Amino acid sequence: MFEIAELGHKVCKADYNEKVPALRTQLLTLQQQLNTYDFSVIILISGVDGGGKGEVINLLNEWLDPRYMRTNAYDSPSDEELERPKFWRFWRTMPAKGTIGIYVGSWYSTPIAQRVHDDTKDPDLQLQLTQIKQLEQELADDGTLIIKCWLHLKKEQQKKRLKQLEKNPETTWQVTDRDKKHLKMYDTFASVAETVLKETSNVQNPWRIIDGSDIRYSSLTVGQHILDKITVHIASHDIRKNTPAPLLPPQIIHGNQPQILDSLDLSLELDKKEYNEQLNLYQGKLNKMARHAHEKKISSVLVFEGWDAGGKGGAIRRLTHALDARNYQVIPIAAPTDEERVQHYLWRFWRHMPRAGRVTIYDRSWYGRVLVECVEGFASQQEWTRAYSEIANFEEALVDHGIVLVKFWLHIDPNEQLRRFKEREQISYKQHKITEEDYRNRDKWAEYSLAVNDMVAYTSSQTTPWTLVEANNKRYARIKVIKTYCEALEKVLD
Amino acid sequence: MFEIAELGHKVCKADYNEKVPALRTQLLTLQQQLNTYDFSVIILISGVDGGGKGEVINLLNEWLDPRYMRTNAYDSPSDEELERPKFWRFWRTMPAKGTIGIYVGSWYSTPIAQRVHDDTKDPDLQLQLTQIKQLEQELADDGTLIIKCWLHLKKEQQKKRLKQLEKNPETTWQVTDRDKKHLKMYDTFASVAETVLKETSNVQNPWRIIDGSDIRYSSLTVGQHILDKITVHIASHDIRKNTPAPLLPPQIIHGNQPQILDSLDLSLELDKKEYNEQLNLYQGKLNKMARHAHEKKISSVLVFEGWDAGGKGGAIRRLTHALDARNYQVIPIAAPTDEERVQHYLWRFWRHMPRAGRVTIYDRSWYGRVLVECVEGFASQQEWTRAYSEIANFEEALVDHGIVLVKFWLHIDPNEQLRRFKEREQISYKQHKITEEDYRNRDKWAEYSLAVNDMVAYTSSQTTPWTLVEANNKRYARIKVIKTYCEALEKVLD
Repeated sequence: MFEIAELGHKVCKADYNEKVPALRTQLLTLQQQLNTYDFSVIILISGVDGGGKGEVINLLNEWLDPRYMRTNAYDSPSDEELERPKFWRFWRTMPAKGTIGIYVGSWYSTPIAQRVHDDTKDPDLQLQLTQIKQLEQELADDGTLIIKCWLHLKKEQQKKRLKQLEKNPETTWQVTDRDKKHLKMYDTFASVAETVLKETSNVQNPWRIIDGSDIRYSSLTVGQHILDKITVHIASHDIRKNTPAPLLPPQIIHGNQPQILDSLDLSLELDKKEYNEQLNLYQGKLNKMARHAHEKKISSVLVFEGWDAGGKGGAIRRLTHALDARNYQVIPIAAPTDEERVQHYLWRFWRHMPRAGRVTIYDRSWYGRVLVECVEGFASQQEWTRAYSEIANFEEALVDHGIVLVKFWLHIDPNEQLRRFKEREQISYKQHKITEEDYRNRDKWAEYSLAVNDMVAYTSSQTTPWTLVEANNKRYARIKVIKTYCEALEKVLD
Repeated sequence: MFEIAELGHKVCKADYNEKVPALRTQLLTLQQQLNTYDFSVIILISGVDGGGKGEVINLLNEWLDPRYMRTNAYDSPSDEELERPKFWRFWRTMPAKGTIGIYVGSWYSTPIAQRVHDDTKDPDLQLQLTQIKQLEQELADDGTLIIKCWLHLKKEQQKKRLKQLEKNPETTWQVTDRDKKHLKMYDTFASVAETVLKETSNVQNPWRIIDGSDIRYSSLTVGQHILDKITVHIASHDIRKNTPAPLLPPQIIHGNQPQILDSLDLSLELDKKEYNEQLNLYQGKLNKMARHAHEKKISSVLVFEGWDAGGKGGAIRRLTHALDARNYQVIPIAAPTDEERVQHYLWRFWRHMPRAGRVTIYDRSWYGRVLVECVEGFASQQEWTRAYSEIANFEEALVDHGIVLVKFWLHIDPNEQLRRFKEREQISYKQHKITEEDYRNRDKWAEYSLAVNDMVAYTSSQTTPWTLVEANNKRYARIKVIKTYCEALEKVLD
């Protein structure tokens, strides 16, 4: 697949100097246009050593307007990055909508390097590529344009390039032992790269392989490629905007799975005495296990979803009572800030991922996408239907990293909810919790029920199960929550 | 000073159980009120080991509403934190206005520990305390309420507490060798603590010393103290809001210092040939030195200020041409985002501090406070007049950390500006740079000149000098910029 990039393309200096100003002007004009659009552009510049990645990236930085562009270099991860799932470092620096992010080293670097050095085998690489494709697909679904450039060199060219660099006292520092080692591994590298590029090229996110033997040629080609891709993307974005996607009929959206929630026995309860005993017991247990988990650097992510007035806050408070306040954060999910609004909807959850040995408790979560955003129409049908698999991938990434993930749905019936609303209205510091909207939402109980059923059906797996909590009785619910987290910790601490 | 906290205050269980619900209700109600105010609350819980810090913090987390509160634990800094000035880790987690941040371990922890272990001497401690007082003063000036609680124990009490904890199999883990070592150092610790508390208590940010021998007493006292402090702060905030501060007469604000800018020789220029030669020379030099600095993990912060159309962008581009795009970020300063708006005005500059060996280039900067915000009245007279010393402290912190700080003012005259405006209007991708506002600003040239003169006069020091760049001739300006940065790097690389 590299043949086309081995033809020895060249651009002479005069030609280059003539073409650059026009290209720059076009890029700058396009950037201004892009800035009014609600999608971002990610540019990956990868390729063989000596293929001129650094030069091309430096030129792009010179050509583009820094106000709408950021270059992110991913060399060895920091300890804060190592403590999170592997894609976290890419999420934390995602470009905002309307802007460009140039990635030096990307999610491809580690998988390729590991396979070349035989630290991984083919199946490992395949799994990594699957995860990469998922990530790119999700970004593309969100409108993101991913431009992937691969700068190629033939073996002899690489050898020659390194020699040239080494000979020149100005550039000899650029040639490291690692490069020389890589040169010896050229064939292995080329073969792994070929697998990776083939596997991860598709119509939406194709690789563009570029002859890297002449820096003027490759810079112009990369620049022109970026220009073309963004121009086309803007045009097709406009078309998509003006052609609403066909809506699926509701019976296809909401499957006919048995109504899981209806099977819950809401009469389950604990009396005060039992409750106090069990609360003491499980808080004590949890305290010990949480300490243990902290020492072993095992992190947890707890998700609390449930009906309004379902008792999330109270349950969280009983649970955190057993934790050390230094080690957990409760993240109440409210309306996104403007920095969050210009990102993929999962971004604002990624940013709160706990460090090693810590706990993040989400009071409402990414499930808002398939609950309130679905029912109220804040997300389009396309957006919330694909969210099921986006969420599954997201949670898989957490679990893969060794994070203990526990998800609670606190379930009450409409009568109990009404009783609690009325009760809250009597308590001064709880009054603000009840608004007219809460009453309005009650009218949509049936629609929300369908959404919750789908959510549980589509986003439960062996490793990411939902815990449905019978919560008409607060005491029962609180004990079940604490006990469930204890059991989850027990499993990993054994 | 600890005597009052050694009286052995106690609260019996019945009393405690009676008082807590009322206190909680008041705290929750107050939090809701606080959330409508534009100041934040920082609560420091410090004190002797075994003084019950952990218990009090856990209780506060249980009592307060997590939506408006965050607990930050500062144990050993991460590598990302170590690479920045020491207060960076506190800035990055500052509570937003309207919310509370509880600090476990704070800017006091390291100075106290270092002095107790004799890693520092008294003068070092004094310097650290001065910096702390500056920080607290700046936060207080911004409206922040800092509540500082010190949980105290007598020597015998500490001994007894540790013994108790050790005896109980449930809590024996809490007693570390470090604690036992600290017990032996009680007297030293108490004496250092006394110095620190005395030195850093003032009317605005006083320490409250609390008897830590009985956890019920100390929790209630801390809770009540927080309640009182926030209540009073809200009241005095309201009063201040309604009593506009008296304005100083302009001649006091703008001193009669000689007009520094007028002394610049704007006729300085370079012809094309000289320019190209020198550009090559200094870009080559800079490239080498920047590489060196990167290897030695020396970071740089470059500030570009200047008149509209002064040539900042062009100068930045010529300078970054010599840098590796992986190692620098250009941060164009635009209107703050809503996450930035709920923080101290310096926060949005702190967040972009470079990692070790990297370069952050600010295209406009914190000097906006004493330039546009001053002239246009976006900041009050109090705000921008105190900004001079805030900026001085901020920059001192960067320089102290070993960051190379270079500040440029690109100076042109009004005629040259007009010429460039007209020129820009002819270039398609530069048209957007010229708005009516730019023309309006020209009417305020004299006011801006005064502001710039003051800025240069008040914020230049041996270690944080301004470089005034004669920029009527772009070529001359660009060379001076690159050369100046070269010289700054040369100094630290020697």
